[in-house]
Amino acid sequence: MLRRKFIQSSAMILPATGLLSFTQKYSHYKNTPLDIGIAGYTFVHYSLDDSIAIMKRLNIRYLSVKDFHLPLDSSPAQVKEILDKYKAGGIEVYTVGVIYMKTEAEVDRAFDYAKRVGVNMIVGVPTYDLLNYTEKKVRAYDIKMAIHNHGPEDKLYPGPDDIYNRINKMDKRMGICLDIGHALRAGSDLVRSVKDFAPRIFDLHIKDVSAAQADAKSIEAGRGAIEFKPFVDALRSIGYTGKCSIEYEKDMKDLVPGLAESIGYFRGIMAC
Amino acid sequence: MLRRKFIQSSAMILPATGLLSFTQKYSHYKNTPLDIGIAGYTFVHYSLDDSIAIMKRLNIRYLSVKDFHLPLDSSPAQVKEILDKYKAGGIEVYTVGVIYMKTEAEVDRAFDYAKRVGVNMIVGVPTYDLLNYTEKKVRAYDIKMAIHNHGPEDKLYPGPDDIYNRINKMDKRMGICLDIGHALRAGSDLVRSVKDFAPRIFDLHIKDVSAAQADAKSIEAGRGAIEFKPFVDALRSIGYTGKCSIEYEKDMKDLVPGLAESIGYFRGIMAC
Repeated sequence: MLRRKFIQSSAMILPATGLLSFTQKYSHYKNTPLDIGIAGYTFVHYSLDDSIAIMKRLNIRYLSVKDFHLPLDSSPAQVKEILDKYKAGGIEVYTVGVIYMKTEAEVDRAFDYAKRVGVNMIVGVPTYDLLNYTEKKVRAYDIKMAIHNHGPEDKLYPGPDDIYNRINKMDKRMGICLDIGHALRAGSDLVRSVKDFAPRIFDLHIKDVSAAQADAKSIEAGRGAIEFKPFVDALRSIGYTGKCSIEYEKDMKDLVPGLAESIGYFRGIMAC
Repeated sequence: MLRRKFIQSSAMILPATGLLSFTQKYSHYKNTPLDIGIAGYTFVHYSLDDSIAIMKRLNIRYLSVKDFHLPLDSSPAQVKEILDKYKAGGIEVYTVGVIYMKTEAEVDRAFDYAKRVGVNMIVGVPTYDLLNYTEKKVRAYDIKMAIHNHGPEDKLYPGPDDIYNRINKMDKRMGICLDIGHALRAGSDLVRSVKDFAPRIFDLHIKDVSAAQADAKSIEAGRGAIEFKPFVDALRSIGYTGKCSIEYEKDMKDLVPGLAESIGYFRGIMAC
């Protein structure tokens, strides 16, 4: 089944001759200072190679890699092999995650992994009792921790305020990966969140949801309840310099049309 | 080959259960008064059924139908059968074309066809010597003629000015289908064209091109040389009430990713 999907997606995303060089040659997004990336979970049903081909086709250069494509226990040699594949595709792995941590050993593993991968940030979810230990590791490794909010069902961090209130007195390298879809479902005001938590917003998961309510569903960007223009204006107002990683969670076994539409929509918003 | 493509595209666009009703239920484009359609030539390598499935997947409601999906010599019964297919897909055929006319008989055929299809506009290219005859038919049928510009290679109408200068003294139902990609390649100023030719702009072919030069290539909207925001602002400034039909002419045998990205981009621009 998945195999079939891979074949379909491969067939679908295999570009016409010279497409990539052509695309890269002419690619320039006017008035678009923000880098677009992809949150790796988007590719949960795709092979590593297919995910790279899709990112190339959609002209995406940055990836928050998920462990199913770069396992947590990868040896330095295995890390290099996989990073080389991404590099060959013109893709930079700028962070890792989302990594869930329930024990100090899992925190240790996450930081050792991030160091092996060579990134300066982890998108993660440490339990409350691990926050102080996580802060120690952030200082020891000089690797930032961007804690991810996962909406109303999330017992720990439904919205960005639930993160901010626990880390705002901590080391400045403790911050937030703001997932705007989950935040809206959790009742957050996205513009307010960007402005209030500005110095702690390290990463973004960009998506749309069908409504501003807890049980809303993922949907193509622009078809849902999120007001993208005020959100992007707010990012510009705080001088956000991180990535904007699209996370597409609808039709995840056949995601290219909706992912492409969502990326196009966000690029359109950023061009205004 | 094409058959294989159809199968792939079908496999690719077959939605997850309930997708369409879900999409339609939640679809609403904020600050977007302009209707997005598709210029039928986009689907030159796709079957009628696949083109409908793609439009449903991308939430497109309006089509400028091309003769390879609705033949010019279709009987009333054949027209009804095909229009019923589009209606079942939630798609309204709002115009026909592009139809090239080199003889009075071809003009007669185009107007009889448009009348059978039940549209109030033809996107067409009558030769200069047929313009007066075309105007007579416009009056006799009360069907508008939107003449299409096709860029520097077009011996008749490279840019919208080449159309406007020949029809601006004619019946008000003689107008322009402004193809912005071909117009840019022909050296037109898109904002100027929209404002100067406002009352005569009946339809639009929306696309991007790699550069503002004659030999530029088609490219995903937002990756090229067209400044979409000023163009859309100009459309709003003249109170444009026609459709904005995306015409995607890159990777035409595997067009969904680029078409979806282009539609998303244009929706993003319109949402600002």
